[in-house]
Amino acid sequence: MDLRQKALNLHKEYRGKLSVEVKVPVDSKDDLSLVYSPGVAEPCKEIHDQPQTIYDYTNRGNLVGVVTNGTAVLGLGDIGAAASYPVMEGKAALFKLFADIDAFPICIDRKDPDEFISAVKALEVTFGGINLEDISAPHCFYIEEALKNALDIPVFHDDQHGTAIVTAAGLINAMKVVRKSFENIKVVINGAGAAGVAIVKLLSSMGINNTILCDSRGAIYEGRPYRMNPMKEHIAAITNHDRVEGELAEVIKDSDVFIGVSVAGALSQQMIASMNTDPIIFAMANPIPEIMPKEAKEAGVAVIGTGRSDFPNQINNVLAFPGIFKGALQVAAKEINEEMKLAAVEAIASLVEADKLSGDYVIPDPLDTRVVERVSEAVAQAAVQSGAARKSNIKVEAK
Amino acid sequence: MDLRQKALNLHKEYRGKLSVEVKVPVDSKDDLSLVYSPGVAEPCKEIHDQPQTIYDYTNRGNLVGVVTNGTAVLGLGDIGAAASYPVMEGKAALFKLFADIDAFPICIDRKDPDEFISAVKALEVTFGGINLEDISAPHCFYIEEALKNALDIPVFHDDQHGTAIVTAAGLINAMKVVRKSFENIKVVINGAGAAGVAIVKLLSSMGINNTILCDSRGAIYEGRPYRMNPMKEHIAAITNHDRVEGELAEVIKDSDVFIGVSVAGALSQQMIASMNTDPIIFAMANPIPEIMPKEAKEAGVAVIGTGRSDFPNQINNVLAFPGIFKGALQVAAKEINEEMKLAAVEAIASLVEADKLSGDYVIPDPLDTRVVERVSEAVAQAAVQSGAARKSNIKVEAK
Repeated sequence: MDLRQKALNLHKEYRGKLSVEVKVPVDSKDDLSLVYSPGVAEPCKEIHDQPQTIYDYTNRGNLVGVVTNGTAVLGLGDIGAAASYPVMEGKAALFKLFADIDAFPICIDRKDPDEFISAVKALEVTFGGINLEDISAPHCFYIEEALKNALDIPVFHDDQHGTAIVTAAGLINAMKVVRKSFENIKVVINGAGAAGVAIVKLLSSMGINNTILCDSRGAIYEGRPYRMNPMKEHIAAITNHDRVEGELAEVIKDSDVFIGVSVAGALSQQMIASMNTDPIIFAMANPIPEIMPKEAKEAGVAVIGTGRSDFPNQINNVLAFPGIFKGALQVAAKEINEEMKLAAVEAIASLVEADKLSGDYVIPDPLDTRVVERVSEAVAQAAVQSGAARKSNIKVEAK
Repeated sequence: MDLRQKALNLHKEYRGKLSVEVKVPVDSKDDLSLVYSPGVAEPCKEIHDQPQTIYDYTNRGNLVGVVTNGTAVLGLGDIGAAASYPVMEGKAALFKLFADIDAFPICIDRKDPDEFISAVKALEVTFGGINLEDISAPHCFYIEEALKNALDIPVFHDDQHGTAIVTAAGLINAMKVVRKSFENIKVVINGAGAAGVAIVKLLSSMGINNTILCDSRGAIYEGRPYRMNPMKEHIAAITNHDRVEGELAEVIKDSDVFIGVSVAGALSQQMIASMNTDPIIFAMANPIPEIMPKEAKEAGVAVIGTGRSDFPNQINNVLAFPGIFKGALQVAAKEINEEMKLAAVEAIASLVEADKLSGDYVIPDPLDTRVVERVSEAVAQAAVQSGAARKSNIKVEAK
């Protein structure tokens, strides 16, 4: 049976992938009187008197909403909120499986960004955090920013930051393999969607000064007269200081790193040949990368990563979001800030031990069980240190 | 340990009452590739091509949102959306325990009815049905009406209809005990909140012509110059045809049935003495009824029901909402219409066998395991017959 039929059968047999379960024992009328009326009034009164105790008396503190408008679902594009439902259930399942976080799919059929924002705002009390998922660029930037400002709980657009964090972690280790440093490298990012923009911003904040972001029309530079939007204007202002123009094939010359979040086949062996020595390639188009690892290696790359599980160095968001939310929820964080994201980057990178590091191993395996604990600890600690935590129920080690 | 401390301990120990679980087996990378990318794309494409299949490939078809704005929580009043959270988790737990329905609490901090409506509308794709809970009157009427009109899934305000349906079922059997019929009785309902209004409307639709609804200012009648609202105007138009004025003590004279959804102690033995022979009393104020059963019996009532589990004839919504939603979800109903509600009334009443019927047994025990099946079958059948069902995957018996 092929994958298609297997997937359809699984979803139909179980009718989706999630269930809501009662986690307290209910075996008698007495139990019922605690779970519901009259006993349930007691935690209600406590929360009314001390709002903070909602994190003690309800599941809110371990609950993430996986929220979408269905406008950029996997590689399928704008298939709508209803058709995105299996992906949101799947993402919620990953939260549970990887971090023991309860996550719940919320598919909101509102393409107008302000209507969508308004709908998500109304869910603040329900969740301990909001994972935005599969929302198309550039609306995703506006939406995330508005929700981060409005809500007092973490809001995290995984397609942006999850990808950026794992990419940055891989890049830290790849730098060690080729013995280069962030200060001196030129990085070209191809694809100006959610992930590409977030990668550029994160790398810039980590001290990489020489970055150029390309979209399908080539390099983005200040004053480019076509295909700009507010986010691209912002990116243009913080990157490409020489205002380089031109197609990817031009721009990539003399660069050290290529990061692709674009389309299959966007990178050629000729382009790689024009890069500096020991080029690093993260070709993350799914399911077919910008260049296949075999071709990339023939062209002389030192490190190649993809989004696929059947090649080494899989850049997979599951290395980041479970631990990030787990850490944020552990301390009832009000947000996921830059300090927490950088802590996640460092934690993920640190899991590749120096003696095991190689061109084929710059990033932990997605099923490496150490990841979620290491990331969550680092993120919780960063939350406390940066003032994002409501609770400080963890030991903060001296730096 | 007292109930208060027990309830607080339970909620704190388990941190709420619900969890979200993965119901499909995930033991390998292959399983992951079905649950998430790339396999998950297949049900997405199916739903995109055939929207109806969302009920086959996701959990939506067995999923109810338990939605509140926290404005009328238990007897606690307007404690707000956050403080209502334990009740919504508890209600969701009842859905699971009684009907194996996945239910999820949604606490929306929006007291403006239109903002609340807008927020709930945005959740349509996420749920198979919406159970509105603990929303204060009269906004609850406007909110439910607007949502029923706007949404293509069942919307059911349990505080209204659940209570009304169980009360009506009890009344059918109580009539048999006293050998009276709906056509000839006078019914006084005390309390013009969500439940009182719904009871009046349901009883009227069942052929009881002589009803009077009282609020704290006495009988509601057409043209009453004080404390009216659009719903009370509507009630005035369909009840109290003689435009009787006055306090409950006046109005209750020569009535056959008193239904209290008001406050402790609202009914006296003197008032009962002024009623017709074999009076029927449903005194449902919680936790202390309008009159205690012992006093009511001393005053000569034939049937007394309350909301409490420690007396006979407990009028408990759990007899209705689990089976009603189960039946509606079984056929992917677009709404819960009057036919379906009446089917639930008849089903609940029918569970009290003629040879067991007595003044102390006019309504099934809330833990009677036959209830949910009987009610869901009746409701599903009524949904198919009335055209509310999207699926007709049940046998419809000839009437």
